[in-house]
Amino acid sequence: MGPHPAVAATRLAVRNTLRDLQPGDLVLVACSGGADSLALAAATAFEAPRAGLRAGAITVDHGLQAGSTRRAVDLVARLRELGLTPVEALGVTVGTRGGPEGAARLARYTALDTAARTHGAALVLLGHTLEDQAETVLLGLARGSGARSLAGMPPLTGHYQRPFLELGRDITRQACVAQDLLPWEDPHNADPAYTRARVRHEVLPVLEKALGPGVSEALARTARLFRDDAEALDQWADRAQADVTHDDGELEVAGLAELPAAVRRRVLRRTAVVAGSPSGALFARHVEAVEKLVISWHGQGPIHLPGGVEIRRRCGRLLFHRPAQS
Amino acid sequence: MGPHPAVAATRLAVRNTLRDLQPGDLVLVACSGGADSLALAAATAFEAPRAGLRAGAITVDHGLQAGSTRRAVDLVARLRELGLTPVEALGVTVGTRGGPEGAARLARYTALDTAARTHGAALVLLGHTLEDQAETVLLGLARGSGARSLAGMPPLTGHYQRPFLELGRDITRQACVAQDLLPWEDPHNADPAYTRARVRHEVLPVLEKALGPGVSEALARTARLFRDDAEALDQWADRAQADVTHDDGELEVAGLAELPAAVRRRVLRRTAVVAGSPSGALFARHVEAVEKLVISWHGQGPIHLPGGVEIRRRCGRLLFHRPAQS
Repeated sequence: MGPHPAVAATRLAVRNTLRDLQPGDLVLVACSGGADSLALAAATAFEAPRAGLRAGAITVDHGLQAGSTRRAVDLVARLRELGLTPVEALGVTVGTRGGPEGAARLARYTALDTAARTHGAALVLLGHTLEDQAETVLLGLARGSGARSLAGMPPLTGHYQRPFLELGRDITRQACVAQDLLPWEDPHNADPAYTRARVRHEVLPVLEKALGPGVSEALARTARLFRDDAEALDQWADRAQADVTHDDGELEVAGLAELPAAVRRRVLRRTAVVAGSPSGALFARHVEAVEKLVISWHGQGPIHLPGGVEIRRRCGRLLFHRPAQS
Repeated sequence: MGPHPAVAATRLAVRNTLRDLQPGDLVLVACSGGADSLALAAATAFEAPRAGLRAGAITVDHGLQAGSTRRAVDLVARLRELGLTPVEALGVTVGTRGGPEGAARLARYTALDTAARTHGAALVLLGHTLEDQAETVLLGLARGSGARSLAGMPPLTGHYQRPFLELGRDITRQACVAQDLLPWEDPHNADPAYTRARVRHEVLPVLEKALGPGVSEALARTARLFRDDAEALDQWADRAQADVTHDDGELEVAGLAELPAAVRRRVLRRTAVVAGSPSGALFARHVEAVEKLVISWHGQGPIHLPGGVEIRRRCGRLLFHRPAQS
């Protein structure tokens, strides 16, 4: 008799992810003890040795909740029982920058980066599921900043990989039950102080009720399509930028005017960022103001962007200038 | 003393819309009697004569509710009082195709098209607001079919124009109050049997609560960005399609393989539609199956698409074939 279908699904997803590694390579699973990453750890412990790979796990102790250290110690023991090695609990200090969720994420990824380097891991696996992806898309939607923000989490970034991104959370839950794994539910996941928790427990259920089941799948699919769109448009913008940029860094207005708006704005945005305007502070309305120098020119003055970048049009060219600090 | 700020905002939006018309041209306002289209009718009655234009109005009586005919007669009188002429109430018969909302929309646009033709109107103005746009984006999101479905309603399609697409519904309500216009609230707008009504009354408020105010604006902005993205990608796909299509209509696999996925899938999709696969039945997964003939070829058999279109790969080319009806 084969494994439970949910267990088989988690293993298949991990197997596909490990395909391109070399024998002897080390894979680390980032495990919080929740159902998603616990199922991921179990599937990796099963699949890695069969592919000639080594598999370990890292759990990050954010130190934000009473008993978190004891829980981390307990989780390390359980992960070792699955046959994973090395298994480590890393304590981190969560700062305040970027809000509670952002600060915890930053601390976590910094710890994971260090662990990956220390152990020479070829890949670090993350347990994000289809529903996590749907939540990310909704969070991006609220920013209203276009295809990039709707593209969700990529399956692969650097040495991070997300094998479960097209797998529903119900599958990871079932896989845990079928393998007698007791997941730990992070109370933060249900804490309405956290935006993502509100999206999970308030927004998605209402969306499912109003629009029918399958909304999470549709959102995850949307993310994939938008990632592809964004990549194609970035590729076009690469080419266009090279075409319209003079050796001295000035942009040719005539060339910009011929581009479709979506490509033109991407070229203007990148040039502004290179000139020193911080990407996170540069909104669509800023880029649209710069665009007016190209498409509705009537001799207007320079545009000022965040970071002190000034853009003016002169003799059919756009000049991006960052005044020296005074 | 100038007009109320909300009235001024509605007039400015209409003024911008009428800018490109010729003196003597006729503009028709499609008016349901709701706050949005009533404010639109009032603003158009004010602005059109000042721009040397003629302005009339059409109200469509769907005959779906008791008293609808009496209400249409009453609305016609009020629109005439605003100085609009001609004003007509058009009775339509709503079919069943496309569900209750789709069938009513089809009947309405058919009637408006006819009225525009009969009266020789240069433009038909529709009262859709920022919130209508946000709802459309959410409805598109649930379909999960990419940039086109998130692009919302365009400000201009054919002779239809939507002057209020960046104006909030609260503005149109205020404009009605300030001008003593009594809007009629369509009970369908609050009927949870209608998907759009559920999005309006259940989804958007929850989204605002979870993600903060300004969600509707972000969704509307998203729509604009995606429309631009979709246009740029369509333009690329036009070029790419011409490049990879042989005179006999077969597609060159090598050329398709070099394209970014987003462009390649658009080319495959269009070719399938031209070959006879109905656009509405052709989903992302169909196109991805065809794409596998290009990017993961191992001698597999033909792909069958809705509408009986069959696609096979032979000698480095894709052949789109629609078997003769038997």
